Amino acid sequence: MGRIVTLCTDFGGKDGYVGAIKGALLSIAPTATVVDITHAIPPQDVLHAAFVLRTATPFYPRDAIHVVVVDPTVGSERRAVGVETDRGTYVAPDNGVLTLVLESAMPKRAVSLVDAGYWRLGVASKTFHGRDIFAPVAGHLANGVPLEAMGQPVCDLVHLPQVGYRRVGGSQVEGHIVHVDVFGNLISDVPASALTERKARSVWIDDMGPFDIGRTYGDVAPGALLALIGSSGLLEVAVREGSAAERLRTGRGARVRIT
Amino acid sequence: MGRIVTLCTDFGGKDGYVGAIKGALLSIAPTATVVDITHAIPPQDVLHAAFVLRTATPFYPRDAIHVVVVDPTVGSERRAVGVETDRGTYVAPDNGVLTLVLESAMPKRAVSLVDAGYWRLGVASKTFHGRDIFAPVAGHLANGVPLEAMGQPVCDLVHLPQVGYRRVGGSQVEGHIVHVDVFGNLISDVPASALTERKARSVWIDDMGPFDIGRTYGDVAPGALLALIGSSGLLEVAVREGSAAERLRTGRGARVRIT
Amino acid sequence: MGRIVTLCTDFGGKDGYVGAIKGALLSIAPTATVVDITHAIPPQDVLHAAFVLRTATPFYPRDAIHVVVVDPTVGSERRAVGVETDRGTYVAPDNGVLTLVLESAMPKRAVSLVDAGYWRLGVASKTFHGRDIFAPVAGHLANGVPLEAMGQPVCDLVHLPQVGYRRVGGSQVEGHIVHVDVFGNLISDVPASALTERKARSVWIDDMGPFDIGRTYGDVAPGALLALIGSSGLLEVAVREGSAAERLRTGRGARVRIT
Repeated sequence: MGRIVTLCTDFGGKDGYVGAIKGALLSIAPTATVVDITHAIPPQDVLHAAFVLRTATPFYPRDAIHVVVVDPTVGSERRAVGVETDRGTYVAPDNGVLTLVLESAMPKRAVSLVDAGYWRLGVASKTFHGRDIFAPVAGHLANGVPLEAMGQPVCDLVHLPQVGYRRVGGSQVEGHIVHVDVFGNLISDVPASALTERKARSVWIDDMGPFDIGRTYGDVAPGALLALIGSSGLLEVAVREGSAAERLRTGRGARVRIT
Repeated sequence: MGRIVTLCTDFGGKDGYVGAIKGALLSIAPTATVVDITHAIPPQDVLHAAFVLRTATPFYPRDAIHVVVVDPTVGSERRAVGVETDRGTYVAPDNGVLTLVLESAMPKRAVSLVDAGYWRLGVASKTFHGRDIFAPVAGHLANGVPLEAMGQPVCDLVHLPQVGYRRVGGSQVEGHIVHVDVFGNLISDVPASALTERKARSVWIDDMGPFDIGRTYGDVAPGALLALIGSSGLLEVAVREGSAAERLRTGRGARVRIT
Repeated sequence: MGRIVTLCTDFGGKDGYVGAIKGALLSIAPTATVVDITHAIPPQDVLHAAFVLRTATPFYPRDAIHVVVVDPTVGSERRAVGVETDRGTYVAPDNGVLTLVLESAMPKRAVSLVDAGYWRLGVASKTFHGRDIFAPVAGHLANGVPLEAMGQPVCDLVHLPQVGYRRVGGSQVEGHIVHVDVFGNLISDVPASALTERKARSVWIDDMGPFDIGRTYGDVAPGALLALIGSSGLLEVAVREGSAAERLRTGRGARVRIT
């Protein structure tokens, strides 16, 4: 059994790009277990991918390798990076797509993947680093090559500016809505751990609130608003049998304040 | 080589839920062979999933484990069940999604999955039993834990009321249209075996008919209606180079009568 | 570790057909590594599938087996074929879907898959050869059965008429637009090798041109047209930050002339 290598891309299914990435990976690491997380990230939506990675990758074995190809700035100077954490190893463009993962995982090592000896054929096309850099690097990692052999250490990974919670004064936490799911639930970047420490009770979204925290859907009437910890361990605001995004007419980027 | 574990869900590709389920499964059974049946079941459409399972799962090795997460009543009192049959083992919500499979497979054992020791971390979120119960249970099954160790025997699995054929008098069979495929073919829950025994010749759908059985597309003119046994072994009514659903203005739930 | 078997179909995700194919394959070759290339080929679009195969399959190990089920003429007299090349082995309907692959890969052996002993149960449904012929044959190939044991040699594979470049006189190459990608790039069937030999400089599409070859996106202004070698090694015409298909109001089938 080889190591698990997951793939998360915005390539969809109409083209052969996903197939090419898998081929480039399996050509180097034929025993790797390739797992699709999704290929239906909205095109070039880095924040959406960041949220999906946060939702899916923490549930894998710690030696899994997660390849991310949501890469609107491919061909520019943006770096290709490998990041080893206590929750898994990530191979991705350095465009902030790991921001939410790194809010909860502890990074051990980050490397700029500049050693072309670990790329496909030693060169990369200008437009398809998924096939030519990310997949081959993941293959070599799966084969046991240490990450630090593949490039230069870096300590200034790009962080999405619209993500990140912080403590304000002694009693408040501030964060952001980072995802609206298909039900219209407004999901924030504030983890459960930030709340239990503070015995938080009320949530505001922009100027709207307060909404009580800690109830389950069953505790409120159909159509009522509530705040709760969702299945990924993040605070969210929901409407029972309805859409909080529609009710509050807000979405990604809204500020969240917990008091 | 580990055992084959298939996944059939309605989660689509926009979110990280499918990825999380695979991670939870592989964390317990790293050598399992994970196979996607589909994640594009229409949201919460239990009958649709029941038909897809009937179409796909009989073709797998008998020791395969089939995980189903189409679960509109998650969080209610509905049970999580494991069902061992002569055609494979199923892990699913007890909401009728196995109805069509159990029309052709012989159940050997059904268990309500109440032993939290086989769940992820021993607890389940209120909204994501796919990750927290079904996937971990499938992982333990793949590792060789016997199904009967994971809960209590049950003998009253939920059955979808709109599914099931029966003999009427000595010469008729009655069933239902359970699926309309992309071509507009009307597919019933009546298997070929129910027909050959009776030398059936004519099909009625509600009050429309009779349609002759047993011909192939090539035997009728373009635009003509015919009844035949489809590739899954079920009786269907079709229009050559056309849509039977449009022609007859009917669909799922229509009654089928074979004389 | 079994051999890699890839799947490329137009079945989408709403039905159980993809799941059935995987089951039929794994029932015969339980240790095969099954890889999805895509199941979202537009229905019955053989040329689209031909292009996706050309984009994805060259990047796999040479012993990989590629199963193609885009099969609008299933049930007719069209043959099922296995084709062994220096780049991999293909199992497909003989409807031209391998045309673009065979422009770059060298075929070693082609066989009409007539030996029903290698089909599922020795018979095939009239409408689902993917499950009943292609997948079982791929399973037996993965198990080491030689292709030549499964049928009769053939030397007249179907070739899509709208595909194929040729030399004209001593200095021109003529080909076709075979794919329009999601960005509106017009991708031809003319490989880089046909250009470097000729030191080609200018491209015409139908009567439009000349467009300079060999530049990268960065070399032209936003909105400007350019011709370049894309990531799959084929000549394409693109608009920087725009759609060449819209600008030139052309698409698949257009003639390409390089001088």
